[in-house]
Amino acid sequence: MDVEIISIGTELLLGEITNTNAQFIAHEIAQIGLNSYYQTVVGDNPSRLKETLAQSLNRSDVLIITGGLGPTYDDMTKECVADVLALDLELHEESLKRIEAYFESKSEKMPKNNIKQAMIPKGSKVIINNNGTAPGILIEHELKTIILMPGVPYEMKAMFKNQVLPFLERKSDVKIVSRHLYLFGIGESDVEEKLEDLMKDSANPTVAPYAMNGTLMIRLTAKAKNEEEALELISPIEKRIKDKFAQFLYSVDEEAMEKVLVELLIQNKKTIATAESCTGGLLSEKITRVPGSSEVFHYGLCTYSNEAKNRLLSVKETTLQLHGAVSKETVVEMSENLLAMAKADYAVAISGIAGPGGGSKEKPVGLVYIALASKDKTIVKKLNLNRNRAQQRQIIRQQASLHAMKMVIDLVKETVV
Amino acid sequence: MDVEIISIGTELLLGEITNTNAQFIAHEIAQIGLNSYYQTVVGDNPSRLKETLAQSLNRSDVLIITGGLGPTYDDMTKECVADVLALDLELHEESLKRIEAYFESKSEKMPKNNIKQAMIPKGSKVIINNNGTAPGILIEHELKTIILMPGVPYEMKAMFKNQVLPFLERKSDVKIVSRHLYLFGIGESDVEEKLEDLMKDSANPTVAPYAMNGTLMIRLTAKAKNEEEALELISPIEKRIKDKFAQFLYSVDEEAMEKVLVELLIQNKKTIATAESCTGGLLSEKITRVPGSSEVFHYGLCTYSNEAKNRLLSVKETTLQLHGAVSKETVVEMSENLLAMAKADYAVAISGIAGPGGGSKEKPVGLVYIALASKDKTIVKKLNLNRNRAQQRQIIRQQASLHAMKMVIDLVKETVV
Repeated sequence: MDVEIISIGTELLLGEITNTNAQFIAHEIAQIGLNSYYQTVVGDNPSRLKETLAQSLNRSDVLIITGGLGPTYDDMTKECVADVLALDLELHEESLKRIEAYFESKSEKMPKNNIKQAMIPKGSKVIINNNGTAPGILIEHELKTIILMPGVPYEMKAMFKNQVLPFLERKSDVKIVSRHLYLFGIGESDVEEKLEDLMKDSANPTVAPYAMNGTLMIRLTAKAKNEEEALELISPIEKRIKDKFAQFLYSVDEEAMEKVLVELLIQNKKTIATAESCTGGLLSEKITRVPGSSEVFHYGLCTYSNEAKNRLLSVKETTLQLHGAVSKETVVEMSENLLAMAKADYAVAISGIAGPGGGSKEKPVGLVYIALASKDKTIVKKLNLNRNRAQQRQIIRQQASLHAMKMVIDLVKETVV
Repeated sequence: MDVEIISIGTELLLGEITNTNAQFIAHEIAQIGLNSYYQTVVGDNPSRLKETLAQSLNRSDVLIITGGLGPTYDDMTKECVADVLALDLELHEESLKRIEAYFESKSEKMPKNNIKQAMIPKGSKVIINNNGTAPGILIEHELKTIILMPGVPYEMKAMFKNQVLPFLERKSDVKIVSRHLYLFGIGESDVEEKLEDLMKDSANPTVAPYAMNGTLMIRLTAKAKNEEEALELISPIEKRIKDKFAQFLYSVDEEAMEKVLVELLIQNKKTIATAESCTGGLLSEKITRVPGSSEVFHYGLCTYSNEAKNRLLSVKETTLQLHGAVSKETVVEMSENLLAMAKADYAVAISGIAGPGGGSKEKPVGLVYIALASKDKTIVKKLNLNRNRAQQRQIIRQQASLHAMKMVIDLVKETVV
C-alpha cells in the first residue's frame, strides 16, 4: 500500500519552519511497513493545491495531509479536498460543541470563524483533536484513503499516534520492528568497517549505523508477520553486535546518555557531583534534565575561572601555576576535592579549551581533561576533541560531557558487577 | 521567476532525517524575492525521479535539486537529469583532480567508484565543493536552470551561499530585507492583538510575529530595488514597534539572549555569577556557550539539594525549614550570599519546581523564584511557568533561564543609562 505525504503551508515554502511533520509521519509509516515514495510541500493556493491532490490520488492509495485546517480564509485544505473528490461540506455538530467547549474552558467566546473548523466532507469521519480546535478528518472514497490533520506538530502527533496509526496498522500485513544499539567512543567509519559483512549479508534484519548527536546508533530492523517473529529474527544479530562493541555500548533503545546514567545511579543507590570548567554546566544541566535526578545529584560547581577552582574547590595555586587549569593535575585535584566536599560516590571534573580562543601550540583548542574520583580510585582521561568544524565550541562541550557520563557509566557497571 | 526545490533520498522518505536542506534553500530564495511554490521529496528511483523532474521542468523556471550525487550505484540524480534533458555525461578533468587530491590529503587512495562523481552533463558548469567530493552542477538549458548540489547539509550550504546565491541574485530584480525584533515576556496572542492594525495596514514592510524557542520574534520584511531602500521602508515601522514593546524588546536580529547578555556585560565591564536549583546548570551553560564569556562569568553553583544550598551558599537552615527551598526568602539568601562570595557585580539565583514530581497545592509544578542581587538592590520575581504541555520540565527550565537573563539585561541597562 503506497502512502503519500502532503504538507500544506506558506511558512514551509518560505523556509520559516522545518518540515518536521513529514519526517514524523514518514518515520511512523515506515515502521509499520507501508511504502512512501513522495512527500510534497505546497502552499495555501487552491489551484496548485487541487492539482497536487489530483496527482497524488492518481498514484497513491493513502494521502496523509497536514496543515490548512485553521479558521481563517486562507486555510482551504478541506475545501480543496472536498472539491477534488466532488463531496459537499456539512456541519459536524459534535465537533462544533467541542470547539465551543474549548473556548469556554479558556473563558473566551468562540469567534464565528471557528465554525468553519467544524465543517467536514460528507461521508467522512472525524479524528478527535484533544489539543486544539481543528478536528482531523478521515475520508474513505473509491478505494482511496485521505487523512487530514492540523499542521501544529503536537496536535498532529497526538492524533496520529492515537488514532491514525492504529487505523493504518490494520491496513498493513507486515510488522516492522527495530532495535537501536547506542554506542559512544567509536567513529562511524570504524563501525561501518567492522560491520561490513553483517551489513551485506543480513537482509532481515537490516543492519545500519547512524551518527547521532555525538553518539552512534546501530539500527536493526526486521520485517515479519508480528512483533514476536521480528524480534526473534533480530535477536542473534543483536547479540553478535553487542559482543563486538561491548566496550562502546551504553544503551539499547535509549539515546539520551544522561537518562541511562541517572537510572543506573538510582538503581545502585549512588550519588554524583560535578565540577565543570569548559562545559560550563552542560553536564549538570544534562543530568538534571532527567526527572528524578535529585535522588542522585545534589550539587555541581561551574568553576570557570582559576580563582573559582581555587576558592570553591581548593585547587592549589601552585597546581594551577605549574600545570595550568587544563591539566591532569588540576582535574584530579578538582575531582578528589569535590568527592570529599560533596560526600558523593562519584565526582567528575572537566577542564578543557572549548575555543574559539584560548588555544596554544601545547594546549590546542579541543584539549580536554576529565577526572572521575570515587572512594577506590581516580581515573583521568585526556581527549583531543578538535574537529575543525563549524559549531566547534558546542561540539567540544557536547563531546566532553558525553565522555564524562560514559566514564561514570563504565565505572558504576564495573563496580557493581 | 519560479523556483522549485527537489530533495532526493530514501532516508528522507523513511523519515530518518528532517529535510533541513529544503528549509534552508527555501528561506534563502525567499530572501532574494524569488517565488517558490513546490517542494518535493523523492527517492533514488529512476522512474519516479525522472517523472518528478519532467513535471517540475514543466511548471518552474529554476530547479534546485539536492542529493544523489554520491559515488555509489544508487546515486543517480545526475544520470536522471541528463536523461530527461537528453544530454550526455562527460568527464570533468578538473573535478577528477580535485577528488583525487581530496583522498590524497587524507592519505587514502581514491576508490574507482568516485570517478563517477566527476562526470557532468555536457554543456554544464561545475559548482566547486570545498567540503567534500561531489561537485555541484549548474545547467542552463532551453530557458530553464537546473542546479544540482550534494545532500550533505554543510557541503550544500557552503556551495549555496558562496556560489549559487550570487548567481540567483543576479536573476532577481527585487531585494528582500528583513529585520527581526526579539521580545521576551509577552505572549504571541498579546503581540498579535497589539499589532493587529499594523499587520493589516502594512503591506511593505509586512509585519509578522513568530513564537520562537521561548521568546517571540516580530519580523519586518520589505521589498525594494536595493537594500538601502528596503531599510528606509522598514525604519518608521520598526520605530513604532520598538516604542510599543520597549519593555519586552531584548535584541534586534539576534535570537540568542545569552549572546545579548554576555555582550552587554563585556561592554559595561560587569561580571555575573549564578546559583541554580531547578535549572540545574542551564543558565551557566547558556552563558558559557558564548565565546568570550570567561571575561564576565567566573563561577556558577548548581545547588540542587537543600544541603548544597546550605553548605555551598550558606542559606540558613531555618530559612529552608520555614519557607522551603522554593521561596522568595531562599532565593534572596542564595543570590545575596553568592554576590558576596563571588565578588561579582550581579548574582542570580533560581529555585523552582520543574516537575513532573515535587509539586503540591501551595507550590505547584511551574512555580519558580528568581532573585537578582547587585550592590544596590535585590530584585525577586515569582513565576508560574506551568503550561500543561509535553516536555513541561524542559520548558519550565528554559523559561526560567530566559527570565533570569532578561532580568539581568534590564538591570544592567537601567544602571548604566
